[in-house]
Amino acid sequence: MSDKRRIVVVGGVAGGATAASKARRCCPDAEIEIYDQDEFISYAGCGLPYFIGGHSPNWRRLLARTPDQFLEKQGIRVFLRHRVSSIDTTNKTLRVVDLEGVSELSIDYDVLILATGAAPVVPPLPGRDLEGVFVLRTLTQALEMKSFIDLQAPHRAVIVGGGAVGLEMCEALRRLGVEVHLVELLDHVLPPLDADLASMLGDHLEKNGVQLHLGEKVEGLEGDGNGRVRRVVTSGGVLEAELVLLSIGIRPVSDLAGQAGIELGVRGAVRVDAGMRTSAPDVLACGDCATTLHRVTGKESWIPLGSTARKQGRVAGETAAGNEASFPGVLGTFILKAFDMAAGKTGLGVSEAVEAGFQADAVTVEDSVLPGYYTRDLPRLTVRVTVEKNTGRVLGAQVVGDYAAQADKRLDVFSLCLAAGLTASDLSSLDLAYAPPFSRPVDLPIVAGNLAEARVLGRECTCDAEGLE
Amino acid sequence: MSDKRRIVVVGGVAGGATAASKARRCCPDAEIEIYDQDEFISYAGCGLPYFIGGHSPNWRRLLARTPDQFLEKQGIRVFLRHRVSSIDTTNKTLRVVDLEGVSELSIDYDVLILATGAAPVVPPLPGRDLEGVFVLRTLTQALEMKSFIDLQAPHRAVIVGGGAVGLEMCEALRRLGVEVHLVELLDHVLPPLDADLASMLGDHLEKNGVQLHLGEKVEGLEGDGNGRVRRVVTSGGVLEAELVLLSIGIRPVSDLAGQAGIELGVRGAVRVDAGMRTSAPDVLACGDCATTLHRVTGKESWIPLGSTARKQGRVAGETAAGNEASFPGVLGTFILKAFDMAAGKTGLGVSEAVEAGFQADAVTVEDSVLPGYYTRDLPRLTVRVTVEKNTGRVLGAQVVGDYAAQADKRLDVFSLCLAAGLTASDLSSLDLAYAPPFSRPVDLPIVAGNLAEARVLGRECTCDAEGLE
Repeated sequence: MSDKRRIVVVGGVAGGATAASKARRCCPDAEIEIYDQDEFISYAGCGLPYFIGGHSPNWRRLLARTPDQFLEKQGIRVFLRHRVSSIDTTNKTLRVVDLEGVSELSIDYDVLILATGAAPVVPPLPGRDLEGVFVLRTLTQALEMKSFIDLQAPHRAVIVGGGAVGLEMCEALRRLGVEVHLVELLDHVLPPLDADLASMLGDHLEKNGVQLHLGEKVEGLEGDGNGRVRRVVTSGGVLEAELVLLSIGIRPVSDLAGQAGIELGVRGAVRVDAGMRTSAPDVLACGDCATTLHRVTGKESWIPLGSTARKQGRVAGETAAGNEASFPGVLGTFILKAFDMAAGKTGLGVSEAVEAGFQADAVTVEDSVLPGYYTRDLPRLTVRVTVEKNTGRVLGAQVVGDYAAQADKRLDVFSLCLAAGLTASDLSSLDLAYAPPFSRPVDLPIVAGNLAEARVLGRECTCDAEGLE
Repeated sequence: MSDKRRIVVVGGVAGGATAASKARRCCPDAEIEIYDQDEFISYAGCGLPYFIGGHSPNWRRLLARTPDQFLEKQGIRVFLRHRVSSIDTTNKTLRVVDLEGVSELSIDYDVLILATGAAPVVPPLPGRDLEGVFVLRTLTQALEMKSFIDLQAPHRAVIVGGGAVGLEMCEALRRLGVEVHLVELLDHVLPPLDADLASMLGDHLEKNGVQLHLGEKVEGLEGDGNGRVRRVVTSGGVLEAELVLLSIGIRPVSDLAGQAGIELGVRGAVRVDAGMRTSAPDVLACGDCATTLHRVTGKESWIPLGSTARKQGRVAGETAAGNEASFPGVLGTFILKAFDMAAGKTGLGVSEAVEAGFQADAVTVEDSVLPGYYTRDLPRLTVRVTVEKNTGRVLGAQVVGDYAAQADKRLDVFSLCLAAGLTASDLSSLDLAYAPPFSRPVDLPIVAGNLAEARVLGRECTCDAEGLE
């Protein structure tokens, strides 16, 4: 292919910005353009709760690269407030609406990369459009919400949805001194976690002043007569609030691709192969709008995360450049901090594993992560590992505990186990980094491996973190 | 085999205590005895610098289990201050000297587990026996040193040897307000690390008031005429000191095994197979006295560490019980904290890899480990990864940086890579736990993987931690 190829990227937050940058690195002479309907690109979407909570009062710190920097440093032209309204995959052209000028133009591409991301799911609730009701997905939405909080100083907030963003926003709003109610349809927060583990996090939220309303469904929002929200009506009662955040979930933004006849996959995400190719020639997709392979189940899945978007974007950029590259998929690893606790997961819980066709069992260990003599303030962690019966293959892990207990470190160990297909016995003999300021001599993943190995072999085991049994 | 078998363990600190405990779990009816010449067993040897530095002023917190607890909870009889003086592997008996009673007895065994540990290397220096000159390996030695410091309140200390214990003791003694001089024969501290990385740690020691004397050899110690040490004479000059710690290195305690005709291996350690069996029937060995396989080089090696000792002890206990168990070996993973920095390594550096027959290359990344918007106080880390040319197989990694930068977490990722034989490309697509309070979206091991992958493919790559290139 000629180096003068035109690579057009639609959407420029995480996947799109990375794809464009990688394509530039591979094709110094290509024409590369990014179109985005928003007024910002290349920002840290995962950082929005921390901007609102005041960790970083200056929103410009969330920007990885500005349009000017894309142009000057990389020769990538960025068109903000430009909405791509249709794709003609036969003639390889796009129709683009300039939202400021309200003009429409037609542009052509040699390779198209769709990185249209995901959008909040907003149910058709009465009162949805009242002032003070927010969703939080884009920087623009975050700025609106922050500005509202600064000006209105709401006393009470209701967060609807106990997923990662909902929990991070509990902490953010409590930091700002707002009374926080969390409404969750299920009977525990953080639905991907086992209920008993999630309840540890729930208890911690309550200790930090978050009032939980579990197993309740939001039925409507009511205003003050002047268009401002004042009440949330749930199946359990009425909650007073001047601020409502709807963080119920997100869906892939794939309408553009679907209307162009490009194949959609699970959850309506744009179906891609390991090279990020869609069903249409020379059309790629990456990031939150695209499917990905789950490496444990082997199934097509949709698990939108900023870290995955960047890895997919890198592969899309390579493919756009004509190089061979492939993304092996994900393990569904996630983690979050809420106040002084952290919780996360990689791979499958027992019920998910059974659903995926595995015979699965789980072992749980709970202990301090540092030696008792090193510090009085011993951070504690609970680790639950899912293993396949008979083979002992590690299928997943869940962690919950003190933020200082480095749940992330242990989760990464399990993530590597899953990527490499290791077993409980392999866990038992891991050579992890040990010194008293970092862990106990036999770190929790190894203890869990010992327990799981004994379980698989049909023995009992009561080893503790000193390695004594 | 009958459950009434006699399992005798020589040495009971880490490997021995674990082996005895595991054997008990497997053989509820066996007679299990531990003989140790010291007055303490089952203590945290790695915790001694933290006891001396005052993290844990009560030394009893270092004890995992007392002899009484071994007896009451596990029916394991412990004989302290009993030195095993010889082994008769034909008749399966031991000669044991009771150091208190000065009596000698003969005991028999069905299975013998040698866990005799390692001992400090002490060169025949003039003045070696002066008061105020210490080695630090056992709890008894730590108590002597702590008592000396408490009573004498030394102003100045010289630490000889810049390995892990030497560096941990720099911090411990500075915490106590002692002026500290560190003498190291090589031109950088922490010899297993590359010189440029080790020098970052060296600079940090100096900032914390440790005076470095690199490339200097200790020639002798001089006293005050009353038997107390006052000066250390090195190839570079004379250092005044009331306290001297010799932490030059350690050697396996294998004389007992050697004299019994049991085969010794590399560095004189007791040669064992994966089941911890020595060359003599029914004699096992584990912990710091035993060899182990290096999983990257595939060679017999001697890398004594408390975490390894426990894992080997577990396998020795299983083997003693007649079960099949095996220890796959180590990666040489280690880490240490000194003041506010941490440094560690797993697997091989480039020169070690070349020596082991690999064609090796390295890539280095240095960056903050958290997003810039999350905190002002950004912990930084340098990661160097050794990869095999052409294949991209990960052969090792070194980390050095702020203690808060979780060098241990990244080292564990690389340790898993080595255990699983992963490549730079595998690193690139790891699904690590990401949220802003834990890491940047593309964590340093992944960035290093991207760089190494490009290097292996003969490309250049300048990706940064935002995933932009």
